[in-house]
Amino acid sequence: MTTEKNPDVTQPSRQIRSSVLHGAKDLRIENRTLFPPSPSELQISIRSTGLCGSDLHYYRHYRNGDILVREPMSLGHESAGVVMAVGTNITDFQVGDKVALEVGQPCESCERCKEGRYNICKEMKFRSSAKYFPHAQGTLQDRINHPAAWCHKLPESVSLDLGAILEPLGVAIHATRRAQLSPGASVLVFGAGAVGLVVAAMAKISGASNVVIADIDEGRVKFAVENKFAHKGFTVPMKRGNSIEENLEIAKETAAAIGKVTKGSGEVVGEVDAVFECTGVPSCLQAAIYATRPGGKVLLIGMGTPIQTLPISAAALREVDLVGVFRYANTYPTGIEVVSKTGPDYPDFSKLVTHRFTGLEAAEEAFEMAAKTKDGEGRLVIKVVLETGEEDKAGS
Amino acid sequence: MTTEKNPDVTQPSRQIRSSVLHGAKDLRIENRTLFPPSPSELQISIRSTGLCGSDLHYYRHYRNGDILVREPMSLGHESAGVVMAVGTNITDFQVGDKVALEVGQPCESCERCKEGRYNICKEMKFRSSAKYFPHAQGTLQDRINHPAAWCHKLPESVSLDLGAILEPLGVAIHATRRAQLSPGASVLVFGAGAVGLVVAAMAKISGASNVVIADIDEGRVKFAVENKFAHKGFTVPMKRGNSIEENLEIAKETAAAIGKVTKGSGEVVGEVDAVFECTGVPSCLQAAIYATRPGGKVLLIGMGTPIQTLPISAAALREVDLVGVFRYANTYPTGIEVVSKTGPDYPDFSKLVTHRFTGLEAAEEAFEMAAKTKDGEGRLVIKVVLETGEEDKAGS
Amino acid sequence: MTTEKNPDVTQPSRQIRSSVLHGAKDLRIENRTLFPPSPSELQISIRSTGLCGSDLHYYRHYRNGDILVREPMSLGHESAGVVMAVGTNITDFQVGDKVALEVGQPCESCERCKEGRYNICKEMKFRSSAKYFPHAQGTLQDRINHPAAWCHKLPESVSLDLGAILEPLGVAIHATRRAQLSPGASVLVFGAGAVGLVVAAMAKISGASNVVIADIDEGRVKFAVENKFAHKGFTVPMKRGNSIEENLEIAKETAAAIGKVTKGSGEVVGEVDAVFECTGVPSCLQAAIYATRPGGKVLLIGMGTPIQTLPISAAALREVDLVGVFRYANTYPTGIEVVSKTGPDYPDFSKLVTHRFTGLEAAEEAFEMAAKTKDGEGRLVIKVVLETGEEDKAGS
Amino acid sequence: MTTEKNPDVTQPSRQIRSSVLHGAKDLRIENRTLFPPSPSELQISIRSTGLCGSDLHYYRHYRNGDILVREPMSLGHESAGVVMAVGTNITDFQVGDKVALEVGQPCESCERCKEGRYNICKEMKFRSSAKYFPHAQGTLQDRINHPAAWCHKLPESVSLDLGAILEPLGVAIHATRRAQLSPGASVLVFGAGAVGLVVAAMAKISGASNVVIADIDEGRVKFAVENKFAHKGFTVPMKRGNSIEENLEIAKETAAAIGKVTKGSGEVVGEVDAVFECTGVPSCLQAAIYATRPGGKVLLIGMGTPIQTLPISAAALREVDLVGVFRYANTYPTGIEVVSKTGPDYPDFSKLVTHRFTGLEAAEEAFEMAAKTKDGEGRLVIKVVLETGEEDKAGS
Repeated sequence: MTTEKNPDVTQPSRQIRSSVLHGAKDLRIENRTLFPPSPSELQISIRSTGLCGSDLHYYRHYRNGDILVREPMSLGHESAGVVMAVGTNITDFQVGDKVALEVGQPCESCERCKEGRYNICKEMKFRSSAKYFPHAQGTLQDRINHPAAWCHKLPESVSLDLGAILEPLGVAIHATRRAQLSPGASVLVFGAGAVGLVVAAMAKISGASNVVIADIDEGRVKFAVENKFAHKGFTVPMKRGNSIEENLEIAKETAAAIGKVTKGSGEVVGEVDAVFECTGVPSCLQAAIYATRPGGKVLLIGMGTPIQTLPISAAALREVDLVGVFRYANTYPTGIEVVSKTGPDYPDFSKLVTHRFTGLEAAEEAFEMAAKTKDGEGRLVIKVVLETGEEDKAGS
Repeated sequence: MTTEKNPDVTQPSRQIRSSVLHGAKDLRIENRTLFPPSPSELQISIRSTGLCGSDLHYYRHYRNGDILVREPMSLGHESAGVVMAVGTNITDFQVGDKVALEVGQPCESCERCKEGRYNICKEMKFRSSAKYFPHAQGTLQDRINHPAAWCHKLPESVSLDLGAILEPLGVAIHATRRAQLSPGASVLVFGAGAVGLVVAAMAKISGASNVVIADIDEGRVKFAVENKFAHKGFTVPMKRGNSIEENLEIAKETAAAIGKVTKGSGEVVGEVDAVFECTGVPSCLQAAIYATRPGGKVLLIGMGTPIQTLPISAAALREVDLVGVFRYANTYPTGIEVVSKTGPDYPDFSKLVTHRFTGLEAAEEAFEMAAKTKDGEGRLVIKVVLETGEEDKAGS
Repeated sequence: MTTEKNPDVTQPSRQIRSSVLHGAKDLRIENRTLFPPSPSELQISIRSTGLCGSDLHYYRHYRNGDILVREPMSLGHESAGVVMAVGTNITDFQVGDKVALEVGQPCESCERCKEGRYNICKEMKFRSSAKYFPHAQGTLQDRINHPAAWCHKLPESVSLDLGAILEPLGVAIHATRRAQLSPGASVLVFGAGAVGLVVAAMAKISGASNVVIADIDEGRVKFAVENKFAHKGFTVPMKRGNSIEENLEIAKETAAAIGKVTKGSGEVVGEVDAVFECTGVPSCLQAAIYATRPGGKVLLIGMGTPIQTLPISAAALREVDLVGVFRYANTYPTGIEVVSKTGPDYPDFSKLVTHRFTGLEAAEEAFEMAAKTKDGEGRLVIKVVLETGEEDKAGS
Repeated sequence: MTTEKNPDVTQPSRQIRSSVLHGAKDLRIENRTLFPPSPSELQISIRSTGLCGSDLHYYRHYRNGDILVREPMSLGHESAGVVMAVGTNITDFQVGDKVALEVGQPCESCERCKEGRYNICKEMKFRSSAKYFPHAQGTLQDRINHPAAWCHKLPESVSLDLGAILEPLGVAIHATRRAQLSPGASVLVFGAGAVGLVVAAMAKISGASNVVIADIDEGRVKFAVENKFAHKGFTVPMKRGNSIEENLEIAKETAAAIGKVTKGSGEVVGEVDAVFECTGVPSCLQAAIYATRPGGKVLLIGMGTPIQTLPISAAALREVDLVGVFRYANTYPTGIEVVSKTGPDYPDFSKLVTHRFTGLEAAEEAFEMAAKTKDGEGRLVIKVVLETGEEDKAGS
């Protein structure tokens, strides 16, 4: 099986190793032939790939929700690496450059693409997603060819791990943009996993003065506050009750609990300007609606139960809008600016990587860790990174 | 019981008659003392009041959803009349002016009011709504005093009936603004009652090139198209199935049916830019989500089932936003422009008033008619208007 | 000289004739070799090309403002034609399709392109503009190859002339979008040439209830109103006075003159919501600023004097924003919807083409006509179209 | 002369002292009678008033640009104080509360007011401005009555000086909102006076990653960076050349100089996302246009030369919009959040007050200081504050 097309007869092809998923928990290391990059592509030695929840679903079930895997597929889409070869038409990259990969390739000709909302292009080929067929292969490979137009050069000061973090950070940037968040805002984030943390961080960076994060796990909440991702946090019972009425009651109580938090003005925050729902759990979305002030927004980020029972009048009658957030568009340049900064009160993005494994062979081990919320020693698992490209490193 | 405060001792008070609701279907004609208008108010002889669905709920149940009536209350809030007296501080109105009343009085000091979204002010006093206490009395009275700042002068060419229509038209204007509708758009409207009709009309006036209206009743659809409120229409089964799965199946079929309609470009419209849901029926909202293109909007206008089961992932993953529409803000000047125009292809707003009753005593009869979808002769009931102010007319 | 690259060795090249500008007023008919379309291109027989002001500048001066022509260049960029051959990757077009060409090819990889504002891409290759080098050749050729992604299929009902009109109409659509125009708005358009007319039309179609057009020529104003492009119009002295003070005085008088026009509400329009400046004449822009209400917008559409003296405080202190309009982005689908419609009160876009010439050989004659405001018989010259493709028509 | 109306006969009036301007540099201390607050007003002991450039113009010339003073007027509009008495209808304030005054009272009934843009209300009564007649008296008085709806309660942690700073900060908040500034943005601020500093600070707080401030004075630039108002700064020659061409050349050089600054990504910033022009000097506005990237915005904040010569094509052809900023609307709650925060990298707003004078009698001395850029000891003069209310302090 060959993964990339567009051979250029003037350069030799090469053999690379890929981590390929053949079924639930059936990861195999395979050799693939990689052609030289086409004129508009870069060939990249993948160095750091963060494991995402969707990767994990594919790994465990060979499907992700309704989307079935239909052919062997490499996983991985939060990635950064080093340029090894440059297509003949490319002038703004050179061998040795550190780059982050924006792994979705939209059609570039539909109305959505042309108006700049390429994240919702129906023909999107997104690496390590089985939605489009043939599947766009993920980044858990020694090297891949990728269009230069979808690669983003990293400055010296930004590590390859932070380069990989730009992918979930893109979701956060896109979400704060869609929220039209402004300085002084009060914000609530449901979920203190990797996405919830970067969402909270982006809200804070955007000038929100009261960013509160909520999670079922006290350790995560503490982590969020200690590492400056949020101003405050609290634990919430994000589980479902037995009836709609019970669920809504829990949701209302959760929303009310936020009222204990005070703004800088001394005012008690009973309702917030925007809620970022990063869990996909119905009771959280219900609580999000109740917690939002009239005219505010609920951002739908967490993917979870596809059919939910919602107090829709409580949203409509107060013009609380339910705003979808699907991946990201035009976020990488902003993300690079964001992770380039540091400071005593600034979110410490480097802390997101809590666990690291080395080599394609460690992929299985890495996924098993990513499935946990705490590791064997009781430490939080936030983001697991697989470090690869040993051979290229040696060569470079 | 006196209805208005701020007496000005230099002018005499007067006795007026009011239609007052004392319980379910218990309307009584009562005398009230009306003080002269305060310095910032107008005294208006009410001439035309359209009956709204919320009035009808109060009339039939002495409540509206969760909102109980707690003291005798006059109904009516879609109203226009003639100025009979002018407060001492008012310079831009004079006796004899025709005016439409914007009947909601927001607090004017909260953040929402100051930013121009006064429709979602929590302290809103809206005539004929029992939410605020004491209730702001409705317009089914001979005369009322109303702040001049919330009165809108009508040009000669606009009838008092059209002045009353400005109220539901305000909802439509607000909805099309929130939809950020633009020329060439494809639009679907669920529900061809009075609100659905004016919503479709505003979409058409805003340049939407393909406005399709859907209703359970074929007569209403025909009415909409014949009177230029919509370009096309079709009947849909807006009823619920027995299970969530069945409901969603119906919703998908409804959404698919729209695909039979073609755009000017010859393209079949499978998904539309915006859906205006004016029914409050869950299967319509479900269908609305499926019918909207990625990046489009569903406008939540119809008030209905407060807790609904929704295919929320179908919205979130395609960034179909669910946008609340509650009443209106800053729509009357636009509305006056809109109803001032006529033309062979222009929506005929005067056709909305299908039934008219005269005198406060006819209020009960009018409400009974408003409860029907067709009158005794089989004609559609769209908007029922109660004409009042006989005595003032005689005097003027 | 060959105009198009990407030969496909399986198809033959062909000889075509081009109208090529070699110097001021030096148009020559030349043979060029046209390769088959590349996999992503269409080969199009050009049938209708409208002549634009920028073409005319190049024709007369071999330059356009600061932009010098640096190699022989075909003119023409308002074009429609018929598909003669289809690239091997194209599935949604076929031979015989009528298409309008969107002639600008942006880089598709800069931030502006990715966010959907490709009209301001710095690497834009726009046919018949000498800004980019080598120049992108214009459409005054028998056939050209053009990326299918930038071709727009026309429905049967839309003529090839209207297909060509989609280009200036794109400017108008872009301008009304940037103006965030809404129903009921009062609008003033300076200039009743082709661009001013379509701008007025789009404002009207967007629901503006009071579209007033102003021009130095009474005939153009009359044309605009008679053909339903604007509601009203008046003549203005668009010339400059001798001093800044005199100019500003003229500008204020012009702005005041608009006050004679009444809105549907009976109110005199002293200040309008948006002014579309389509002349480039300083006194018009000055008048535009004075004529706009606080919080309104002035749209800078006309290209004229590059350095202007402006009453900038009169804009800033009233938050009248000066908004640039450069070409268009994402307007063709909307434009097709717009020209697909007709009606008794609808702008008659077909009337824009006042003069037509046939054959590449007639290009010179056509440009000479385009330079006039009235033809020899005293009729207005609005849009001159050059009809081409005789040979292909015969063959098809 | 009595300054406030609406006496409440149940409370006694009192004598207060006012600093009143009777002519250029003719400030007099006068006694006025202050009635008790009306039902909707607070009576406030003014404690801290910042002196603004417009106050200074009135003080020196008895006019401000075209606006002549037509009756004796107290100056001062950047103010905070302590509540001494509460109107009978007020429930959310009590005696002793610290408040900042939003000193502009718009009409609250025009379209601009109702849509939330009350800063451009034509009937605005703004304290210490002579535009509206009779003039709304400024805050340099012992006490004033002010509508509670336009007072903003300060939390304990916010000093009265910071309360006064909320006024210029409001301009900055309004400007960053109008700029639709987003995280990662590159921003240039012309002018490092009080307004330029808070504008830079708000851009930084909004997440702009590269905020560069430019001023003619090196000391101000240094002050801006040291106190965390901007990331970087440089000195520019903000004077005019002799000809338009020379001026534009200076402007281009200034714009180019910014290119020496690098972004976090390592990229050289040649063009920025938004320029905030806070000087009113033509060469700065010219430079601002050249310095802004295509699709960016220039914010017109500085009031200066009312008629300017501008390279308007350089703006229009790149869709660089010129956006007016006049005062502020709805900024105080945000401002309170902003000044409530502190941190090692956070702008130190308390540093803005460089000079303080005590007592109404010191007003003249204070204005003389405010007219200087450096005091007698060579220290920068940024914001001069007049501290008042000695008598009330003693009493409280």
